[in-house]
Amino acid sequence: MTNVQGVTDELAEFASGLTWGDIPEGARHAARRTFANVVGLAVGASRHDAVEAAVLALRDLGLEGVTSVLGRRERLPVAWAPFVTGIAMHVEDFDDTHLRTVLHPGAPIVPAALAVAELTDATGAELLTAIVVGVEVACRVSNGLSPGHFDRGWHVTGTMGHLGAAAAAGRLLGLSPVGTRHALAIAATQAAGHTEQLGSMTKSLHPGKAAADGVEAALLAQHGFTGPDGALEGRRGLAALMAPRTNLEEMVAGLGSVWEVEHNAFKPYSCGIVSHPVIDLAVLLRDQGVEPNQIESVDLVVRPVVLEVMGVREPENGLRSKFSVYHCFAVGLLDGSAGPAQYSDARALAPEVIALRRKVHATTDPAMPKDACRAEVVLKDGTRYERQIQHASGSLDAPMTDEELRRKFELVVRPVLGEAGNALWQEAFGIDGSPSVSAVLATSRPLE
Amino acid sequence: MTNVQGVTDELAEFASGLTWGDIPEGARHAARRTFANVVGLAVGASRHDAVEAAVLALRDLGLEGVTSVLGRRERLPVAWAPFVTGIAMHVEDFDDTHLRTVLHPGAPIVPAALAVAELTDATGAELLTAIVVGVEVACRVSNGLSPGHFDRGWHVTGTMGHLGAAAAAGRLLGLSPVGTRHALAIAATQAAGHTEQLGSMTKSLHPGKAAADGVEAALLAQHGFTGPDGALEGRRGLAALMAPRTNLEEMVAGLGSVWEVEHNAFKPYSCGIVSHPVIDLAVLLRDQGVEPNQIESVDLVVRPVVLEVMGVREPENGLRSKFSVYHCFAVGLLDGSAGPAQYSDARALAPEVIALRRKVHATTDPAMPKDACRAEVVLKDGTRYERQIQHASGSLDAPMTDEELRRKFELVVRPVLGEAGNALWQEAFGIDGSPSVSAVLATSRPLE
Repeated sequence: MTNVQGVTDELAEFASGLTWGDIPEGARHAARRTFANVVGLAVGASRHDAVEAAVLALRDLGLEGVTSVLGRRERLPVAWAPFVTGIAMHVEDFDDTHLRTVLHPGAPIVPAALAVAELTDATGAELLTAIVVGVEVACRVSNGLSPGHFDRGWHVTGTMGHLGAAAAAGRLLGLSPVGTRHALAIAATQAAGHTEQLGSMTKSLHPGKAAADGVEAALLAQHGFTGPDGALEGRRGLAALMAPRTNLEEMVAGLGSVWEVEHNAFKPYSCGIVSHPVIDLAVLLRDQGVEPNQIESVDLVVRPVVLEVMGVREPENGLRSKFSVYHCFAVGLLDGSAGPAQYSDARALAPEVIALRRKVHATTDPAMPKDACRAEVVLKDGTRYERQIQHASGSLDAPMTDEELRRKFELVVRPVLGEAGNALWQEAFGIDGSPSVSAVLATSRPLE
Repeated sequence: MTNVQGVTDELAEFASGLTWGDIPEGARHAARRTFANVVGLAVGASRHDAVEAAVLALRDLGLEGVTSVLGRRERLPVAWAPFVTGIAMHVEDFDDTHLRTVLHPGAPIVPAALAVAELTDATGAELLTAIVVGVEVACRVSNGLSPGHFDRGWHVTGTMGHLGAAAAAGRLLGLSPVGTRHALAIAATQAAGHTEQLGSMTKSLHPGKAAADGVEAALLAQHGFTGPDGALEGRRGLAALMAPRTNLEEMVAGLGSVWEVEHNAFKPYSCGIVSHPVIDLAVLLRDQGVEPNQIESVDLVVRPVVLEVMGVREPENGLRSKFSVYHCFAVGLLDGSAGPAQYSDARALAPEVIALRRKVHATTDPAMPKDACRAEVVLKDGTRYERQIQHASGSLDAPMTDEELRRKFELVVRPVLGEAGNALWQEAFGIDGSPSVSAVLATSRPLE
């Protein structure tokens, strides 16, 4: 019987003791994918406006430090490197998703682990072990608070990210179980992030701050700073305050044998996941030889939620185009993909995109399954196609392959690093064979 | 009519525009008292274990910076100086209290304002103006969420402190109303702190992080980082998530004419406020010539809440002694005061304290008024005294005088600065006449 009154202690015990040898190959491989995916995203977004604003603001704070930021040449103090890196990993809406809880584990956890790994000169396997620790802790506490925690309005990536980042940082610092409990307490009482903030830069500040606060929490605990017992399950602790109902048992059931990191999914497209079946369908038509200028009309049938959140007809900029299923279809057919380049301001206003998306219509069908959609396409010569998607790529039923992840990596990294992106993929995806994290950090830096 | 749908905007407009000339003398004087009180506390606690742990942890983060910490010689990066200073101001439970909401405004707001004032070389009057801005914003939002926000388990000093610190920092950076709205949004989505954590070092981490996050929020907004509209009042914003009921009207009613800073109260004793009448009573007996070794027994009559939270009979260390009304009475009679020295480990275990507190008994009376208590004292020669306190010193009905605040300042500062504490009081209490904040910072530093 699990003593669920002590879940904070039980998670701390697990987090402080896990070794690379304890992790089965399935979870190891999921961790490699989680790591490599966000490394690419961080490099790709390393010049985004939100990242530049954060770096400039921190420069005023006296930012000389010794810790690297993926894709940039500055060295920042150890808590600020993960702050900036966490923003970069999340800002394009292109990162990993723990689908059950809508937590994006990579952006808060990986930057914290990477910063402390650099500080302590950890091996690649130690880094990945810490990332698994962080993902397990964050996703498991999330499981116990779901779905009410998210439904109430908490941005799970910001709140639970704090716990995962602290656990990962604590593992790399070699904290004891008691030290880890203090680190989790210090992180828990800072767990924050409102879904009201989605659609602004602050959405990506959430994982950045979770990463930074997690590193600080672990360092504070290492130096004797203390929190209370039971920060998660106590009467006025995190669970009581931040979810209408809590299942403490869920947080620790199967700990060390069931691996949440294996349920982490990857987006092939940098927009809300509900439009992914439509993009798949557009890419399929393109692959089958349908030319944009042949098209007379497209009639999509989608789940109702798609039009609720992605119903923008004429998006006026890149950010808004992420919320237009019409735009999603148009770029899928025109470009064969839907990465950050397809959601730029320029692409949102490109004449050929506007012309095509005006030919797209959508109706809803409440019976449409979660990862599915269908369409009737009419060509100018009168030909009619009917096509459907049953499981969108990137869903748990149709996960992205390693090769697809590599191509995604190449897509986002190439504009920053050019050919050097290939070496970075090798280093990131093979990180557990590396004696240190310095190579991946060095390769991520552009030359000038 | 107030447009309560736009309270974030209305508060931002107020915060960005307030000048020293707008503030009437009553509020100015309350601000002087708020500032000087926490300056003394920060110096007094500048070597506390929690402060040392925070400084050591931050040293590992690469902490060379340009911003001062009161009472210490290190210079830290601008967001970390307020982190450490906020911990020091709160850790002795001796700071100011906005009684209606149980918010302690000084510890989160003053360090943020002081750090940005040093960075921007502001005048003392500009510093105090920013502190008033911060106190008004934090207390007013608190008013609109009370009492449910605290009752649910949020540590108001941590949550609302974020808003006050961001508003104060933003004022000193000269943010526009829109910039201030972004800063408030960035701060609001980080508002955190659980009352589960009271009784551990993390309690004082709350105002420290509020101060640091507030400074960062203002700097991020200054450099173009954006948040959403309506971060406070939006459907998934701060008020909706963190209080069962909200009165938006309360947040802005009388803005610029009713000054919450005037309702900020000061503690004469460094422990929970409910035991203050008992300490007053013990000090009164001492002043009337009662000697500890004359006493046969003391029977206190107190409000029920006193024994609920302060009922520890035999406190085993200093921290626990803050939760013993018996200890409070004993040190009041023996020492004539109840400052940090009376809640040390040594004092908790001193034979004469133990002997006296074992002679003290307490019963409760639900009809006892809030700031009152009474006692029957029996001497060994058979003499009986009956004494009562109607309004504890430090309550709004019996506020500490400026001279009492000065003596409190001297009490906490002397062990660190010796005679130089007198000059620091003059500089802190007269800060609005000073052309810069550098003198108060320099004088606060011990010589070696």
